[in-house]
Amino acid sequence: MLRLGVVGCGEQATNNLLPALKNAPGAQIVGLCDIDAARLDSAVQRFGITAGYRDYRELIKSQSVEALILAGPPQMHAEIADHAVRNNIAVFVEKPPTVTTEQLERLADLAETRKVVTGVGHNLRFARPYLVFCGLASEPEFGRPQSFQIRFLCNKPKEPLWGLDCAVRSFLLAQAIHPIDLTLQWLDSDYDLAVTAHAAADGSILLHCLLQGSKVTGLIVTGSMAPSFIFDVSLISDQSMMIGLDSLWNIAYRGVSNEKVPYLPTPRSWRLTSEPSPLDSGYIRSGYQGELDAFVRAITHGAKGPPTFREELPVYRAIDRIERSVKAQLARGR
Amino acid sequence: MLRLGVVGCGEQATNNLLPALKNAPGAQIVGLCDIDAARLDSAVQRFGITAGYRDYRELIKSQSVEALILAGPPQMHAEIADHAVRNNIAVFVEKPPTVTTEQLERLADLAETRKVVTGVGHNLRFARPYLVFCGLASEPEFGRPQSFQIRFLCNKPKEPLWGLDCAVRSFLLAQAIHPIDLTLQWLDSDYDLAVTAHAAADGSILLHCLLQGSKVTGLIVTGSMAPSFIFDVSLISDQSMMIGLDSLWNIAYRGVSNEKVPYLPTPRSWRLTSEPSPLDSGYIRSGYQGELDAFVRAITHGAKGPPTFREELPVYRAIDRIERSVKAQLARGR
Amino acid sequence: MLRLGVVGCGEQATNNLLPALKNAPGAQIVGLCDIDAARLDSAVQRFGITAGYRDYRELIKSQSVEALILAGPPQMHAEIADHAVRNNIAVFVEKPPTVTTEQLERLADLAETRKVVTGVGHNLRFARPYLVFCGLASEPEFGRPQSFQIRFLCNKPKEPLWGLDCAVRSFLLAQAIHPIDLTLQWLDSDYDLAVTAHAAADGSILLHCLLQGSKVTGLIVTGSMAPSFIFDVSLISDQSMMIGLDSLWNIAYRGVSNEKVPYLPTPRSWRLTSEPSPLDSGYIRSGYQGELDAFVRAITHGAKGPPTFREELPVYRAIDRIERSVKAQLARGR
Amino acid sequence: MLRLGVVGCGEQATNNLLPALKNAPGAQIVGLCDIDAARLDSAVQRFGITAGYRDYRELIKSQSVEALILAGPPQMHAEIADHAVRNNIAVFVEKPPTVTTEQLERLADLAETRKVVTGVGHNLRFARPYLVFCGLASEPEFGRPQSFQIRFLCNKPKEPLWGLDCAVRSFLLAQAIHPIDLTLQWLDSDYDLAVTAHAAADGSILLHCLLQGSKVTGLIVTGSMAPSFIFDVSLISDQSMMIGLDSLWNIAYRGVSNEKVPYLPTPRSWRLTSEPSPLDSGYIRSGYQGELDAFVRAITHGAKGPPTFREELPVYRAIDRIERSVKAQLARGR
Repeated sequence: MLRLGVVGCGEQATNNLLPALKNAPGAQIVGLCDIDAARLDSAVQRFGITAGYRDYRELIKSQSVEALILAGPPQMHAEIADHAVRNNIAVFVEKPPTVTTEQLERLADLAETRKVVTGVGHNLRFARPYLVFCGLASEPEFGRPQSFQIRFLCNKPKEPLWGLDCAVRSFLLAQAIHPIDLTLQWLDSDYDLAVTAHAAADGSILLHCLLQGSKVTGLIVTGSMAPSFIFDVSLISDQSMMIGLDSLWNIAYRGVSNEKVPYLPTPRSWRLTSEPSPLDSGYIRSGYQGELDAFVRAITHGAKGPPTFREELPVYRAIDRIERSVKAQLARGR
Repeated sequence: MLRLGVVGCGEQATNNLLPALKNAPGAQIVGLCDIDAARLDSAVQRFGITAGYRDYRELIKSQSVEALILAGPPQMHAEIADHAVRNNIAVFVEKPPTVTTEQLERLADLAETRKVVTGVGHNLRFARPYLVFCGLASEPEFGRPQSFQIRFLCNKPKEPLWGLDCAVRSFLLAQAIHPIDLTLQWLDSDYDLAVTAHAAADGSILLHCLLQGSKVTGLIVTGSMAPSFIFDVSLISDQSMMIGLDSLWNIAYRGVSNEKVPYLPTPRSWRLTSEPSPLDSGYIRSGYQGELDAFVRAITHGAKGPPTFREELPVYRAIDRIERSVKAQLARGR
Repeated sequence: MLRLGVVGCGEQATNNLLPALKNAPGAQIVGLCDIDAARLDSAVQRFGITAGYRDYRELIKSQSVEALILAGPPQMHAEIADHAVRNNIAVFVEKPPTVTTEQLERLADLAETRKVVTGVGHNLRFARPYLVFCGLASEPEFGRPQSFQIRFLCNKPKEPLWGLDCAVRSFLLAQAIHPIDLTLQWLDSDYDLAVTAHAAADGSILLHCLLQGSKVTGLIVTGSMAPSFIFDVSLISDQSMMIGLDSLWNIAYRGVSNEKVPYLPTPRSWRLTSEPSPLDSGYIRSGYQGELDAFVRAITHGAKGPPTFREELPVYRAIDRIERSVKAQLARGR
Repeated sequence: MLRLGVVGCGEQATNNLLPALKNAPGAQIVGLCDIDAARLDSAVQRFGITAGYRDYRELIKSQSVEALILAGPPQMHAEIADHAVRNNIAVFVEKPPTVTTEQLERLADLAETRKVVTGVGHNLRFARPYLVFCGLASEPEFGRPQSFQIRFLCNKPKEPLWGLDCAVRSFLLAQAIHPIDLTLQWLDSDYDLAVTAHAAADGSILLHCLLQGSKVTGLIVTGSMAPSFIFDVSLISDQSMMIGLDSLWNIAYRGVSNEKVPYLPTPRSWRLTSEPSPLDSGYIRSGYQGELDAFVRAITHGAKGPPTFREELPVYRAIDRIERSVKAQLARGR
């Protein structure tokens, strides 16, 4: 059993990561750490893990930790990930892994030199309905993707986070990092970028990003200017097929031909739709189970895990490009 | 920490109960039991619980078990529940707790005499969207419920289970027990019953049950004659308000008046709708977490838990009435 | 061109029947009639039909009317239909054709004796999405229907209409006549009936009707106790296939097998869905065009038309049975 | 009664315009015209309009036509509109009114000089659910629109139309003209434009257009690379409110605050939704009735009508810009 230590016992850890980790095969949580005593005690209590620490170095040493799970602010991620990698301890960090691209690059270099397994928390990639979406898209019948569209809207943050001086990078690191990551999966490394940005009086922002790759266009609408969390994706192929996924729940596959389903009265205006079982439970649908299981298997079996620090770099480069564009626009007052 | 033993390591236990129990506050799983060695080993492995037993008596004794969770066939439930209650061990059984009403009645009497906490697995009662549905219905504005309608359709069982000689009672105990339990919540104890039944060549059945209470009508469409699991409920009040819940996901509240939402162009043809967050995770939505947490709190704090054996009896009496009616109809060949 | 006269220029005529009739092939509207001068003038103006009459006899005589369309209260329908039939003029009446079953029976006898074409306005039978629903159900693959379920809820009438002394028959004739007509299409002529009824303080009622035929169960939930008009139907077959139609808009066909659509990851939990084009226009979807075109063709070509007075009788007999049951229940105070 | 002549008796005229015109108050169709004798005969028959002509000049003269409705290819529109305007006859043309912007500009100048009423067929502007969408957006509570997003996807044309040498302008004039028109309503006259284009082997294309106005961003995804017609719009405001309209059917208003609807358990994750009545009929929902009625009232009462030739020019200028960009991209092979 892989000996896991978890640093950071806030909401993300206690709502999603810890419960999923408790059911991750081949691993056991050997200790928790949080600088906040109350938060630590509450997690220790709730998850029945007796070894609680205020200092992550102590956790690592006392419990012979083999892999760390970090869920805190990016500054903490960067510091502890550096320590972990230097001590040959595998490390999984919640997004965002760092504040700057330079920090991430340095960590990626270090991890490669030391051959330490790293992982970044992009649970959406592992969300089961998204995997079905990708599976349908990979069928020969679907053809070649031409357009990947994503809406990822939420209602926070409305102010700068993590000591940053502007809300734009905070939003990009805290939220837009998800749709950017998913979009880049469909594009090649080279793409043109057009961005429009809006800022409201309450500090929220709204971005439209058009990414023109050589074969596929990526279209992102993201922002903190929404009443609640809204997330949907869709894909169009050169065979006039379309797949949509709403709220990680409803999948719709359009373009079913009448040869396939002969009793349809109006060919191709029908679509195949599906959603999870009403009793769908656990951490598989949202992807938390998948990403953590994959991280464990990456360490124990050398399998393909969640995106490494190196693989995360294109996301940071996109964030940098978008940030520059947004700031220039907002500075010009539009 | 309450010392829990889990007997029966099949799908229901490993997919839903064990992962939820691992995150139940105030309790710890101290041992597993299954008569099937392979199933036991697999669960021991997967959940990292080292104490595995083939005999439930040994589990109870070796691990000083304070409460048992049973997830197997009803004959097993009845036998072990009897043993547990006689040894003053609290017991939670997956549905169906027993095959016959008499067995359940005897267990209920015994548990009351011995003051042992019992619980039956009706997770749907604790499913978060269903609790929202009930919460909206309890607002004064909603008025008095008149009609509770439920569709609970699935594609199994198509043959007799558990050594029973007919598929009807098997279906009623395995599946219809859920919609019957939910429907009875809305009725008083006395109701008239009309049933129509259909049987298909593949062994599947389809039932319509009209329950006429003194104030509320309950309407159940249930059966194994469906392509997949379909579950939705709706409620109509004497104030012409309606609440619907589909697939434990989408809630729709109809009857919003235009005084409430003044900018609506067409009063009362609008509805308020909601669904869980796209990232909704864990065992809360499906109710497994809620029922198990409530069972633990019932033992440790004397709180209201899931339905006791006594409280389950009206469900069994409804099952008996429906079974008689269905069998008479199918015997008459209609 | 068949010479049509329209009697009754209220909402139903001006919103649905007259615009559809103006586009019915093979027929022309030669005159309008209404006892209310203002209503008549407004319709004459709006539809550009110069011949307006206050007396239907005059309309018939002056314009050599060959077929009458009646859209008024049932007493008017009965009187004018009698006159029309006695004068060998074909007659189409909006529902309800009469107040009593006896009146309808007498008219049916008379029309048969005189070989006059009659028709009753059951537009839902001709609604295009409902025809698709029926078409899918008639495919061999679908199997044999076992259960036809219909919800037909609205928010009126809440008081007695047409001089009747109770709101129950008013509601049955004004609204429930629709779901009863559709349901009876799926049953044989003999069926058992169970009904539960609820009445609210504002005069609205709510009914549940369980119709047990020898092969199919019909289930009707109907009433005036809803915030707005709600209409959906579904059908389940002995092959575990299901078809649903919501709001005459969304069709869902469940039970698609994986041989048909090989790239589906989870066979049979997918469904085929369809809805009209966003630009769907006219009177075809709602069935008004279809029923009126069919009535014209029944006269001019002897084709099958909308239900005749004779064919409407089973609906009235069901209404009578339901009325007796409801009144008995409400009298008993439940 | 305004004397209307209709030129072009193809599908658009017979399915939508003629039936709507027959019910337009204050107007009467005095004659039809089509160069194709069979098409003309069929329309004459179907709509009971005896005056049929092969030559539009003859129609105008013989029937003293006061206004023309044109529904054919743009070359025909341009020629007949020119003739109509020079003879002081009001003219409504289906989209596209002309092939080139220059032609449209010339016609607009001419019509202004001669003070002749003109109109272009943008029925979507008049579609009732879209008017509700706009009405909700104009409530003070909604705030200021920031982002207007539109998907307008279809499966044709896949080849050049109307003698044009490339499919791009054909598509822009035949289809994209609709979403461009709607989008420009939300922007000021000055905007930046970024476009990405995809072409498939079957001749279909797919475009993404990002229009950055000084206050609002418009986002258009349009193309012929879809299995069927898909049309939805959404709007986001600086108050974090959102309105969506799918398929001219479902409206969803997100951002309802809990002060408005006090019994909501989770403020602002609820949305208000509505759709037309199941029995919604006629040509109002799709906007055909509205645009034609408005055109008649523009002539008879000087009211605001559908977009004039002058008002259509910004749409053509956008089409020109997009065409240039698309052609450059496709020439570069991306």
